[in-house]
Amino acid sequence: MWYYEKKLQYPVRVGICNPKMAKFLIEQYGGADGELAAALRYLNQRYTIPSRVMGLLNDIGTEEFAHLEMIATMVYKLTKDATPEQLKEAGLGEHYVDHGKSVYYHNAAGQKFDMPIQSKGDPIADLYEDIAAEEKARSTYQWIINISDDPLINDSLGFLREREIIHSQRFREAVELLKEEQNKKKVF
Amino acid sequence: MWYYEKKLQYPVRVGICNPKMAKFLIEQYGGADGELAAALRYLNQRYTIPSRVMGLLNDIGTEEFAHLEMIATMVYKLTKDATPEQLKEAGLGEHYVDHGKSVYYHNAAGQKFDMPIQSKGDPIADLYEDIAAEEKARSTYQWIINISDDPLINDSLGFLREREIIHSQRFREAVELLKEEQNKKKVF
Amino acid sequence: MWYYEKKLQYPVRVGICNPKMAKFLIEQYGGADGELAAALRYLNQRYTIPSRVMGLLNDIGTEEFAHLEMIATMVYKLTKDATPEQLKEAGLGEHYVDHGKSVYYHNAAGQKFDMPIQSKGDPIADLYEDIAAEEKARSTYQWIINISDDPLINDSLGFLREREIIHSQRFREAVELLKEEQNKKKVF
Amino acid sequence: MWYYEKKLQYPVRVGICNPKMAKFLIEQYGGADGELAAALRYLNQRYTIPSRVMGLLNDIGTEEFAHLEMIATMVYKLTKDATPEQLKEAGLGEHYVDHGKSVYYHNAAGQKFDMPIQSKGDPIADLYEDIAAEEKARSTYQWIINISDDPLINDSLGFLREREIIHSQRFREAVELLKEEQNKKKVF
Amino acid sequence: MWYYEKKLQYPVRVGICNPKMAKFLIEQYGGADGELAAALRYLNQRYTIPSRVMGLLNDIGTEEFAHLEMIATMVYKLTKDATPEQLKEAGLGEHYVDHGKSVYYHNAAGQKFDMPIQSKGDPIADLYEDIAAEEKARSTYQWIINISDDPLINDSLGFLREREIIHSQRFREAVELLKEEQNKKKVF
Amino acid sequence: MWYYEKKLQYPVRVGICNPKMAKFLIEQYGGADGELAAALRYLNQRYTIPSRVMGLLNDIGTEEFAHLEMIATMVYKLTKDATPEQLKEAGLGEHYVDHGKSVYYHNAAGQKFDMPIQSKGDPIADLYEDIAAEEKARSTYQWIINISDDPLINDSLGFLREREIIHSQRFREAVELLKEEQNKKKVF
Repeated sequence: MWYYEKKLQYPVRVGICNPKMAKFLIEQYGGADGELAAALRYLNQRYTIPSRVMGLLNDIGTEEFAHLEMIATMVYKLTKDATPEQLKEAGLGEHYVDHGKSVYYHNAAGQKFDMPIQSKGDPIADLYEDIAAEEKARSTYQWIINISDDPLINDSLGFLREREIIHSQRFREAVELLKEEQNKKKVF
Repeated sequence: MWYYEKKLQYPVRVGICNPKMAKFLIEQYGGADGELAAALRYLNQRYTIPSRVMGLLNDIGTEEFAHLEMIATMVYKLTKDATPEQLKEAGLGEHYVDHGKSVYYHNAAGQKFDMPIQSKGDPIADLYEDIAAEEKARSTYQWIINISDDPLINDSLGFLREREIIHSQRFREAVELLKEEQNKKKVF
Repeated sequence: MWYYEKKLQYPVRVGICNPKMAKFLIEQYGGADGELAAALRYLNQRYTIPSRVMGLLNDIGTEEFAHLEMIATMVYKLTKDATPEQLKEAGLGEHYVDHGKSVYYHNAAGQKFDMPIQSKGDPIADLYEDIAAEEKARSTYQWIINISDDPLINDSLGFLREREIIHSQRFREAVELLKEEQNKKKVF
Repeated sequence: MWYYEKKLQYPVRVGICNPKMAKFLIEQYGGADGELAAALRYLNQRYTIPSRVMGLLNDIGTEEFAHLEMIATMVYKLTKDATPEQLKEAGLGEHYVDHGKSVYYHNAAGQKFDMPIQSKGDPIADLYEDIAAEEKARSTYQWIINISDDPLINDSLGFLREREIIHSQRFREAVELLKEEQNKKKVF
Repeated sequence: MWYYEKKLQYPVRVGICNPKMAKFLIEQYGGADGELAAALRYLNQRYTIPSRVMGLLNDIGTEEFAHLEMIATMVYKLTKDATPEQLKEAGLGEHYVDHGKSVYYHNAAGQKFDMPIQSKGDPIADLYEDIAAEEKARSTYQWIINISDDPLINDSLGFLREREIIHSQRFREAVELLKEEQNKKKVF
Repeated sequence: MWYYEKKLQYPVRVGICNPKMAKFLIEQYGGADGELAAALRYLNQRYTIPSRVMGLLNDIGTEEFAHLEMIATMVYKLTKDATPEQLKEAGLGEHYVDHGKSVYYHNAAGQKFDMPIQSKGDPIADLYEDIAAEEKARSTYQWIINISDDPLINDSLGFLREREIIHSQRFREAVELLKEEQNKKKVF
């Protein structure tokens, strides 16, 4: 897959210590529409999806795990040199007393990841779930970029945002493919 | 709206006391893809959706509340004459010790409704969320119909399942409409 | 019901863009003792409550949904013209990266609504649950009024707070009515 | 307090191995209206309640912890000699694979305790919360007694049910006392 | 037990009104590794732990409840004289609109306690769970001390932190004791 | 790593359609001490753990993801040929109406995975958390083996159970290594 290679060549660019940025970025780590949700959703749906689409779920699910590591790396680098006082000022004091400098799967408000995904065992429903997931992740990246004051981070986020758009297109192609096949079966 | 009238003319058909059916039917009351989730999702998204689509969200959200009452009525009627012993045999003993004969917003496994919906403030993302919601609800109705032994209930469920298909089509029309408008803006 | 009409005549008064106010006001949208919890609680309890009280639950439950829309409208109007920077300063940056400018069913701390209500199928227990709910909602309105710096919003909140007091009185009348009836049955 | 002594004299009576009974009884251990919820609610409210009522919350809160131990003891004794096969037949296979023979704070459906209590810092609201809690616990005991086939356990549950009625009366006296005091303050 | 006496002689030292400190301290009240989690974990595990270790769980579990009261007292005293405006500045506005001046079982980010403990009915697993719990609580105290600006509170927290170290040692002794016994049984 | 190769050579052995077995096995997919919890915990802790131990977390975390796929494959194969009626008899009717034949991250009681893991940013605490995790997973495998009637599945589960024991030993070595290093630093 061309996009997988592209990702590997793409360096995560993190500038200076910026815990205020990390505060919002963690939304894409453990938030409702973050990379963890995406990866777990696609890999879980593989078992019942028709085999023509299984590879797509496998590829994108694996890629999302790679994105999860990118987000974790950014959050860690943005906070690792911050003092407790700086974390407090960034609104990360709550995170610090619970997790120290560790990353953790929660959203920007500190709410733990609670499996906000679905897997219905119905291919059409699962693929629309996936398209919605990608569009929601795209929106989240947009909101983070809008609120960010860190151009280097935004550069990486812009790349990740583009990936979600491409994933959404792939899932839309897949759902049309499956509908077409279903219609063929009904005809013959 | 024609479909609203149609619903009002459509009687909820409930046969004999059948708590085993109620056990599964409650999935559409407080489950992840049930009528409560649908109604709360659409009505909440109205504030930021473009005004051309607002009425659609309002209509379908209101209709889902009506469907919620249909489900509640069915669950109640299927259980109200059951003895505690019959509820126990139907796998509803856990429900009975917590809620007696009352209905409650939980899924078939007894897990409380925990707001498994999203609202992103991005019209395209929100509408794909809604299409996915309808496809997932359609699947749930199908799975309940498959596991049911109650033809009268299945008759009502078949009607509700059809409504989800029509809602999905409407949301798909709406998303294409908004995309078209976005493209026009970019051209001129 | 006189109070329903009164509500319709009562305009929601929202002044200038004030996201700091919205931050706290959302507690009554998706918080533990907010309007959503109230509406869902009363409408759900209707099925097993004695018919003499059913109408009361229906009226108040419906009114709470109207209040839910009032709260949503206020939250939306207080934030719709805010920049991401202003939302961040108001403590709504966490909300923005997840939901943009959309409203959402969570409390002031950003914790998702998780069905903090009960329905026991026992009329006395259910009505005391309802009295407690109204007293708790009254307290929440008081705490928001105390922390607010927006007189126009406080004017609307004062009205909503009064409604909770009247609802509490109605539920107290209803519980005494049912107790009286139960005692009569035991005598004869 | 007379009732505390009475409890100490009151033996927990458990008959033979009866995991089916334990399945439902655990509702009062970790369920929404169980003894853990009650104890944690009252002890937490003590800090802001007026001092005239503080002792009542302390007494009842402590008693509920004693009841929690009674429930745990009963659940443990009813299951400790059961085989895995017997637990499975009793609907406790799910519990067994997660917790073995250990007790755990979840409800009859296996949903973890999730702090379904409130503390508003408003004395009237807190005391109505407490009255509702006692009425709900009374209902739960009634539903368990109704579904039970174990007269020895029901004997203990009948005692615990009576305690909830007395607690409810005490809380109702307390709320009237506080209202009276509030009215006096307004007069003078 | 010597440590229990020591605790009773140890006064909770609280200086001036300091809601910013309370904001973080509440992590040890209702947070994942706080005193409530510890107390509930140990007391619940008692029923299936071998009798040689049961007393240890009982002692430490009871002591953790005493620590829970120390934390609650500190949080209450640090906030009781604060104005709503001061609470808002301290990041406790969200707490105030939901709970007024009451304490509540949530973590520093305002997320409700959700039973983050385990009880497996396997003595070795349960004791390692307990060692981990103590080490995690020790870390939390350290992080709070690091972020604190209140030397009097830190004095008390230092004491509580030491208690966790001693508990951890006790649990490590206990796990070695049980392993030794298991090995003996295998030999003979 | 020798164990990774061993795993690849080890075939997942699944016999006939056996949904009753799948019902319990899913505990290790999305349960509190299942493979998902383990994998997410170790990979998340990598960022703050000392580099000497980072590779261990990486290896074991990756292996747990492989085990997650083994569990998913077993659950899928045990249920894919079952009729809705057979799923209902196996206690999987609740799963079926929500997810069809799809696997999903919940425990045996149907409760969604809710991130029951911790990451403290303190190496000693994190490693004891990991030891506890492995001992708890070992217990879960034991309880499932005890309740199972499927020798082929038990054969695979016995292998996975052994892996947890070896992981626990590795984590115990690692914690002693770090303690030793900490002591050295204090001396010089």
